Amino acid sequence: MHQEQRQRAAQLLDETGVELALFTDHDSVRWLTGLNLPAPALLFFERGSFTLFADEGFSDASSFSSEPDCTHISFVGYTIDQPIDAPSRLADALRESLANGSAKSGRVGVEDKSLPLALWQTFLDARPGCEPLSLEGSLLPLRAVKTEEELARIREGFRLVTIGHDAGRKAVRLGQREIDVWTEVQTAVERVAGKWMQMGNDCIVGHRPANMSAAPLDFEIIANDALILDLSVVVDGYWTDSCATYYAEQPTAQQFQMHKFVEEALAYAVSLIRPGVVAQEVDQKVRGFMANGGYEVYPHHTGHGIGLTGHEEPRIVPYNQERFQEGNVIMLEPGIYIPGVTGIRLEDAFLVTANGAEPLSHHDKSLP
Amino acid sequence: MHQEQRQRAAQLLDETGVELALFTDHDSVRWLTGLNLPAPALLFFERGSFTLFADEGFSDASSFSSEPDCTHISFVGYTIDQPIDAPSRLADALRESLANGSAKSGRVGVEDKSLPLALWQTFLDARPGCEPLSLEGSLLPLRAVKTEEELARIREGFRLVTIGHDAGRKAVRLGQREIDVWTEVQTAVERVAGKWMQMGNDCIVGHRPANMSAAPLDFEIIANDALILDLSVVVDGYWTDSCATYYAEQPTAQQFQMHKFVEEALAYAVSLIRPGVVAQEVDQKVRGFMANGGYEVYPHHTGHGIGLTGHEEPRIVPYNQERFQEGNVIMLEPGIYIPGVTGIRLEDAFLVTANGAEPLSHHDKSLP
Repeated sequence: MHQEQRQRAAQLLDETGVELALFTDHDSVRWLTGLNLPAPALLFFERGSFTLFADEGFSDASSFSSEPDCTHISFVGYTIDQPIDAPSRLADALRESLANGSAKSGRVGVEDKSLPLALWQTFLDARPGCEPLSLEGSLLPLRAVKTEEELARIREGFRLVTIGHDAGRKAVRLGQREIDVWTEVQTAVERVAGKWMQMGNDCIVGHRPANMSAAPLDFEIIANDALILDLSVVVDGYWTDSCATYYAEQPTAQQFQMHKFVEEALAYAVSLIRPGVVAQEVDQKVRGFMANGGYEVYPHHTGHGIGLTGHEEPRIVPYNQERFQEGNVIMLEPGIYIPGVTGIRLEDAFLVTANGAEPLSHHDKSLP
Repeated sequence: MHQEQRQRAAQLLDETGVELALFTDHDSVRWLTGLNLPAPALLFFERGSFTLFADEGFSDASSFSSEPDCTHISFVGYTIDQPIDAPSRLADALRESLANGSAKSGRVGVEDKSLPLALWQTFLDARPGCEPLSLEGSLLPLRAVKTEEELARIREGFRLVTIGHDAGRKAVRLGQREIDVWTEVQTAVERVAGKWMQMGNDCIVGHRPANMSAAPLDFEIIANDALILDLSVVVDGYWTDSCATYYAEQPTAQQFQMHKFVEEALAYAVSLIRPGVVAQEVDQKVRGFMANGGYEVYPHHTGHGIGLTGHEEPRIVPYNQERFQEGNVIMLEPGIYIPGVTGIRLEDAFLVTANGAEPLSHHDKSLP
C-alpha cells in the first residue's frame, strides 16, 4: 500500500539531499504507509528504505514488511508487565535498530513540530553529530494529489455520507433537537458500515445566535427553522465532507430565495474548477458572486482539500496562490448566515480532472 | 478551576528545584488548567505563575486569566488569512511572551516525550543556556488523587454510564448485531447529555474467536450468546469505565455459573480495597481467587485508575507496588473468557475512602 506515496517522498528527499529522515507527524506516517495507525508511530527513512515503528497492538502494521524496501518493527503498547509507555518503548526500538546501522553523521530530515525532544535525543545518542533539517510541511503538497488507493477510500466515505444525509433529511422535524437529528445520522451510517465511524462536523438550527459552525446541542427545531447538516465520515483515515440544509416545514420565502441563490453560487464555483486555475481566484470570484447577489459574504473558506485531515491543500481562500492539479480532491461550500434567524450552506466534493471537476458527493441538497 | 492541581505541581517543582517549566503533554495541560483544551496547548510555569497558550477557537480558555497567578495568551487557529498552523502560531506567541521576561538561564522542566523539537528551539533562542530537565511522568502520581471538582465530572459520567447500560441491556436481542446494540447505547447517552459524547470501549458477542476486548462490528447475537458491554463516557475530559454482560435469552447453565463466579470475584476484589493496601497484592489475590475457582486467569489487569485517560495510576497489575490512597478512583474488572463460546466480565468503579471503597458506578450487572 501507498508505494507511490513513498516514491514521491523519496524523490523529494533526494532533491533535498537528505539520506536520513524521521517522520513523526502522525498524518505523514499514515500517508507514507497507508496504515491508519494509532499514535505514536515513527517512520524512519534511510537511503531509500523505510522502517516503520508501530505499537504491536496494531496488527495491520505487520503487512508493511511485505512492501518493497520496507521493514516493520513493533514495540510494546498495552501490557500488565510494566508501565504503559509507548513513547519510551518506541525510543527503545529505535535505539536498538540504530545500533546495527552505519554511524554516518550528516543532515537528518525531521518533522520538528511533532518530533519529541526525547526521541531526537535518542537518535542523536546513536548517531552523534547529526544535524536536524526541517522537513516540516514538505509532504503537504504531495498529499494534495490523491492516488487511486486513496480515492477508493474517499469514494466509500461518500457512499456513507449519502446514507447519513438521507437519515438527516428525514430526522429534521418540528420539536426534534439537533442532537436527535445527529444520533439518527450517526446510527444510520454506523449500522450500514457495521462498525464505529469517526464523523463530524456541524448540526445547527437556524435560530441559534451563531449558526454557521457548531456541534449539535439540545436546540430544538422550531417553526420556520432550517438545519445545516455538515457531515464528514472518515474511512480508513480518509475524510469526506459535505453539507446540506434541511427544513422541518416548507421553507419561508426568504429561505427559498437564499437556498436557490446558494445552489447557484455552488454551481458557479464548480464551473470555475480545472487544473491550472489559481485557488485564490476561485475564492475571489465566488465571494464576488455572493456580494453581487446582495448577500453578506461568508467569513469562512470557499472550499478546501481533504485527505487524512478535514482541511488540506489546496485551500480555497484569499491568500492561496496554488494552482489546482489533476488528482486534487476539493470541497466547495458557499453559505449565507443570518444569525439567530436562518443559515443555509450547501457543499459538494469534487475530484479535479483534466476536464474540470468530477462530483464525489451525491447527497440530495434540494429544497423540499 | 484546578487551583489545587497547580498548587500540587508548584510544590513538586519547588522540591525539584525547578523555577521554569514547559508543560506540553496534553493531559498535563488539561489537568493543570481544568480545561478540556484541543491540542496543541502549552502551559508555561515561571516562579509560581502559570501562562496558558491556547487556540483562540477554544473560548473557554480566557477564564484562565481570572485564576490567581494565571495568564491566558491565545494564538490563531483556524483562519482564511494564512495557512492553518497552530504549532507555529503557538511558538510565535511563546517567543513574544519570552521577549518580555528575564533572561535567566538554568534548568527548565520539560515533558520531553511531548515537547516538540521546534518548540524547544524557540524556547532556547529566547533563553540561551537553558538546560532541559525531564519532568516526564512526574504529574501522574499527583493525578491519581482526585479533587472534588474532578469527582463531580466523574460522577456525572457515571450517571450517563447507567443510562447507556440500561439501553444496552434492552438492545441485546437475538439477531441484533454488536453495532446495533452500540448505536442504541450511544444514542441513549447522547440524547440525555444533549451533545456529542466521547465514548468507548468494547461491545463483543461471546462467539467471537477473540471475545475479550474489541470495538463493535457486525457479529450477530446468536442462540446461547452473551454480550460484553464495556462502556466509558467521557465528561469534560474525565473518563469513566464500566462493564456488564448481557444475554438475549436465559443464560446457559455454564454462563450462569460463570456470571455468578465473576460476581463473587468482583465482590472479593472490592473487599480488599482500602488506603495503604499495595496494588499488586490485590491483583495477586484476585487472580488467585479465579484460579482457585478452576477458571483460567484473565490476561488483562485486575483493575486500574481513571482520570483524563482511561488507564491511569494506580494500575492493579502484577508489578505495581504502589499503595492505594484516599482519593484514588479505581476500576475492578475480573472476567472469564472462553474464546468462540462465551465471555463474561463485570466492572465497577470505586472511590478509595478512609474506610474502603465507595461505589461510583451504579449500572445493573445482574443476571436476567
